[in-house]
Amino acid sequence: MLGHEGDEYYMEQALRLARQAYRMGEIPVGAVIVHGGKIIGRGHNRCEQLNDPTAHAEMEAITAATHQLSSKYLNECTLYVTLEPCVMCAGALFWSQIGRVVAGASDPKRGFTLHGSLLHPKTAWSMGLLHEECGSLMTSFFQSLRHG
Amino acid sequence: MLGHEGDEYYMEQALRLARQAYRMGEIPVGAVIVHGGKIIGRGHNRCEQLNDPTAHAEMEAITAATHQLSSKYLNECTLYVTLEPCVMCAGALFWSQIGRVVAGASDPKRGFTLHGSLLHPKTAWSMGLLHEECGSLMTSFFQSLRHG
Repeated sequence: MLGHEGDEYYMEQALRLARQAYRMGEIPVGAVIVHGGKIIGRGHNRCEQLNDPTAHAEMEAITAATHQLSSKYLNECTLYVTLEPCVMCAGALFWSQIGRVVAGASDPKRGFTLHGSLLHPKTAWSMGLLHEECGSLMTSFFQSLRHG
Repeated sequence: MLGHEGDEYYMEQALRLARQAYRMGEIPVGAVIVHGGKIIGRGHNRCEQLNDPTAHAEMEAITAATHQLSSKYLNECTLYVTLEPCVMCAGALFWSQIGRVVAGASDPKRGFTLHGSLLHPKTAWSMGLLHEECGSLMTSFFQSLRHG
């Protein structure tokens, strides 16, 4: 089930989670993992709430999805995430051997693509879906911090 | 408190955790994080137990240490880990801005150094401490799997 139907729908769900993070004062990144048309993992950034630099949206979604499937591997799943994953999250996605990753906005400072190809060779990868919505949430968040 | 006194002692503590992992059927990697001479975070691999590809020794130790300090940052801490960190763990260490990382055995297949410099520029890095003990634990584990 790696079809591209409904990509926008799932990214909208990731955006909802990103907006939740925003309201909590967290960097607004959200992620969902889909298997057989069903969302089996959700996450948003919680680094501030948990005082934990590893509490990224993707990590939370991966842990939830692997628990749900009782498997370390997500090869039949797609991750939708509002921001290009960082090196840590790309490394986690590598271990999960996830089938497909769809990102929204690029992250020119901390995105994993700065370091070449860190995902699993079997993982399909694309970026740019709803990137304006995804990116403007980030811009607005950092503007509000500066003008706090 | 980034002194090098007692490095072997702390690596021995990481090795104890690696041996615990071994006995649980987990890849035998252990890690401790030290702050002011005190161990404030411990971890060993739990990927099998938790069905979670993100449950690496370093991740567990980072989460424990940041909770202990109530801070996302570990800039005054040293991580001792029996195996060279992977890309995911190096990315997590980057976010924590940890002061120093001391690794035991190298990981020529999955070690982060294959991808260049992924740690924070302020992080001191060394590898090779007790590498024979650390490495032989790994060799023995994978041999027992093959002949199991």
